[in-house]
Amino acid sequence: MPSPQVIPSTMQAVPLLVRRLLENGMTLHSGSEVVTATGGGTRSADYATVGRNAAALAHALAGLGVRPGDRVATFMWNNQEHLEAYLAVPAMGAVIHPLNIRLFPEQLTYIADHAEDTVVIVDGSLLPVFAALLPGMRTVRHVIVNGEADSPLLPDGGRVTVHDYGRLLADRPGTYDWPDLDENQAAAMCYTSGTTGNPKGVVYSHRSLYLHSLGISLPDLMNISAADRLLAIVPQFHAQAWGLPYAAFLTGASLAMPDRFLAPAPLARFIAASRPNKGAGVPTVWQGLADHVRQHPETDISSLREAVVGGSSCPPSLMRAYEDELGIRLLHAWGMTEVSPLGALARAPEGADGEGAWRYRLSQGRFPAPVEARLMGQDGAVLPWDGRSVGELEVRGPWITGSYHLDDDPEKFHDGWLRTGDVGTISADGFLTLTDRVKDVIKSGGEWISSVELENHLMAHPAVAEACVVAVPDDKWGERPLATVVLRDGSGVTHDELRRFLAGKVAAWQVPERWALLGAVPKTSVGKFDKKTLRKQYADGELAVDVIS
Amino acid sequence: MPSPQVIPSTMQAVPLLVRRLLENGMTLHSGSEVVTATGGGTRSADYATVGRNAAALAHALAGLGVRPGDRVATFMWNNQEHLEAYLAVPAMGAVIHPLNIRLFPEQLTYIADHAEDTVVIVDGSLLPVFAALLPGMRTVRHVIVNGEADSPLLPDGGRVTVHDYGRLLADRPGTYDWPDLDENQAAAMCYTSGTTGNPKGVVYSHRSLYLHSLGISLPDLMNISAADRLLAIVPQFHAQAWGLPYAAFLTGASLAMPDRFLAPAPLARFIAASRPNKGAGVPTVWQGLADHVRQHPETDISSLREAVVGGSSCPPSLMRAYEDELGIRLLHAWGMTEVSPLGALARAPEGADGEGAWRYRLSQGRFPAPVEARLMGQDGAVLPWDGRSVGELEVRGPWITGSYHLDDDPEKFHDGWLRTGDVGTISADGFLTLTDRVKDVIKSGGEWISSVELENHLMAHPAVAEACVVAVPDDKWGERPLATVVLRDGSGVTHDELRRFLAGKVAAWQVPERWALLGAVPKTSVGKFDKKTLRKQYADGELAVDVIS
Repeated sequence: MPSPQVIPSTMQAVPLLVRRLLENGMTLHSGSEVVTATGGGTRSADYATVGRNAAALAHALAGLGVRPGDRVATFMWNNQEHLEAYLAVPAMGAVIHPLNIRLFPEQLTYIADHAEDTVVIVDGSLLPVFAALLPGMRTVRHVIVNGEADSPLLPDGGRVTVHDYGRLLADRPGTYDWPDLDENQAAAMCYTSGTTGNPKGVVYSHRSLYLHSLGISLPDLMNISAADRLLAIVPQFHAQAWGLPYAAFLTGASLAMPDRFLAPAPLARFIAASRPNKGAGVPTVWQGLADHVRQHPETDISSLREAVVGGSSCPPSLMRAYEDELGIRLLHAWGMTEVSPLGALARAPEGADGEGAWRYRLSQGRFPAPVEARLMGQDGAVLPWDGRSVGELEVRGPWITGSYHLDDDPEKFHDGWLRTGDVGTISADGFLTLTDRVKDVIKSGGEWISSVELENHLMAHPAVAEACVVAVPDDKWGERPLATVVLRDGSGVTHDELRRFLAGKVAAWQVPERWALLGAVPKTSVGKFDKKTLRKQYADGELAVDVIS
Repeated sequence: MPSPQVIPSTMQAVPLLVRRLLENGMTLHSGSEVVTATGGGTRSADYATVGRNAAALAHALAGLGVRPGDRVATFMWNNQEHLEAYLAVPAMGAVIHPLNIRLFPEQLTYIADHAEDTVVIVDGSLLPVFAALLPGMRTVRHVIVNGEADSPLLPDGGRVTVHDYGRLLADRPGTYDWPDLDENQAAAMCYTSGTTGNPKGVVYSHRSLYLHSLGISLPDLMNISAADRLLAIVPQFHAQAWGLPYAAFLTGASLAMPDRFLAPAPLARFIAASRPNKGAGVPTVWQGLADHVRQHPETDISSLREAVVGGSSCPPSLMRAYEDELGIRLLHAWGMTEVSPLGALARAPEGADGEGAWRYRLSQGRFPAPVEARLMGQDGAVLPWDGRSVGELEVRGPWITGSYHLDDDPEKFHDGWLRTGDVGTISADGFLTLTDRVKDVIKSGGEWISSVELENHLMAHPAVAEACVVAVPDDKWGERPLATVVLRDGSGVTHDELRRFLAGKVAAWQVPERWALLGAVPKTSVGKFDKKTLRKQYADGELAVDVIS
């Protein structure tokens, strides 16, 4: 059969740009608004105003010499001006780079230098912290201070010029001739703070931000419409507030921004005042809010109907308490900076209810179509989605990073896929359940043993206060688990008794032979078990290990 | 300020492909299903089966010599096998080309020739119609018949080989090594049947289909989730069933396909049997269904909660009747083949209710972010969005065509925007209200007069049975309206009385001077006023025109 001529598509070559989200929000949804907490109350701006301010900011930045591709950093809480920067900087062709204010000073100066930030917009309330960092940020030439500063910024010998955000924007035009851009151009960046090595930069493109905004707004994901008012508790400096600012301008949803008022009491007051119906935050924030509302039942957070919880696994009891006591549905999600960040979200499928629904809702969630997932076994084989096979999650898609900025880290990527470092199972209908981090999983004779699972079982024993399981080298099996336990005061139990306790709960070959009693499990700066230190103590022979076989 | 190095994005270069929608639907949503009407009942296939059949079809087509870029046409109703073709053909790199079975034979043979279709998949029930067309389709080499044929296909002197769909797919592998493709490659095509000239081909890309699927699934558009069951009444051969098949595989929604059983009674039975909760169709279908349900109140269509109505303007009384009598929300939408097709959808914004909400809902709808819109005035100026300024709608975006296939038609495009040919207003919050087609609007002295508005006013006069207003040349004003009226039997009214009747309803300068009494308004084959013929009759001096000034 002779083949006819191959034909081109007739579709317009219109790129996916942040500029379009900005224009859409400020015109079709000019009356939607961003509400920012002020401590004593709130302040609001509609999206027409935000759009005009974004244009004024672009003029101001261009006046400071910012050119396409330049990095404009922020050192800010979630607020109206941070939103304006999110929109203006990419739309003018530069790259917005929110700095994570919670990192160590040496990480922050490393990151600002590595990204070659030239301008930093700083909240006045953060100026004391920032002033101490500035001398180490060698490429910064301009600092723009947003709002009242608690302390003046010390001059820096002329290298850095300091501006006031409001005065810098005053009398600037409310429109800007936004440039035509390639959708694959850098638009935003965010550094991950891994537990090992230097922070690594993920650089989002206009395309990835636009697609992520479309994707997370779908009904089965965050379900965002113009009628919504989104409480963005998760910081803009952390994985882009999970994409809410851009999704808001895509859909016309309003935003409620708590600024620095994140403690339970002011957060509850802000919810009562700004009346969001949806929200997003880490488990500890929701825990604190629930505790506060229990102690202050007069607090009105009844506007909230559902909220996404991610960043780490949410205790089931907290999710149930929100549903039963407060009528608020917490939705478990999985993501990472490298995934823009949303990778999966847990809504129970149609027809599942009661405990059946909870099994789905307590998983890390189902993947949306743009996030392709696979599980890799220890031997490099792709594992089935059967809810039982345990492997490392790898993901691929248009809003997932394929490298790090100026940082070769090939072991994080595999044949075009991102290695997430997360270990778990996937069910036949695409729900992810994570059980461990790959660096903590125990690779024993071609099979994986979850350290977290062993720890959870051990900590359910009445005599055990803490249990931490790590992989240690083994001549026969490659690796085997070392179980370290801290006993409750006054309680006594033998390692053999604990082995028998585990025997009915995990496969016999998973039960550890090596045991050590500790006074306390070593912890990292954020309070997690420090498994790296524990492995080193074992290797250095510093632990008294009891071997039972 | 020295500019730092411009940085590339680190995002993965993953294309947006139909193949991904196929894989997503058949794995994560393997239990979702397509239900097809059989007349007497229904038949169903889950998406895992559809995916395996799509792979088998791709093997079969490759075996027939189909190569990337080749056009594979369909001559089919909405059914399971048409869905399989929708998925298999683009995923293997070829181009799916649904033929509109309702066109005239000479249009169909022109289209098949122009598209250079090499393979046609034909429903057995349509074989008698198709057999008459086949001799005129000069590039077709293979015909694949789906299901029982009412009559055998006459052999064609050896040029065409006839296959049976089921036998051709039998024993083929259920997986296919789908190729890596460029997302801008042609994936599907559809011809528009304009009222003038030959039909024109719109060629969709993988990118445009993927983005359209994401866009129409948003909560403020069709709001599609895995929990939905979508009744696709609008044909797959007409503007791709408004995107429902691809959106279903993106989201996991199930599909209900009525095949050829579109008359009110069998359609109502199919709804009762397949229980869709959402639907999409043209106004006449919904009108017929409502009439049927009124006459047969035992008919259970209660599963339907909301349905999109488009293709032409829906009578407000019908939308209100659906809401009040049946509890079904009809949603007005605007689209065209050139727009993939969805361009706008009318949901009332938050806070609007009662008659305020109806004002929004009876408009053509609000534009989603990917559809950029502007109104062009007669003098080429961009008009404001004030709900009053009337201009031609132009649209731009990643799922909008920028040309026609092998058919230069520059007056349909303007500086990268599609000229829709629709005339109307846009409100400040982005709601479109159409008042006329640009070819029918009367361009009088720099202002536009809506022919439809004059017609509606005239037809409200008790003596007037029909009124049709067309533009005619005028030395002073460029164009002026000619009003032609058909009076009701036995009624009498003078042109001067009708002028006075209009005077209080439209601006004085809009009232026609030229009047003609007709026995009947000429109609097109689909029953619309044939304004082209009327204008020609006027130009040829065939009308008795009364001029009053």
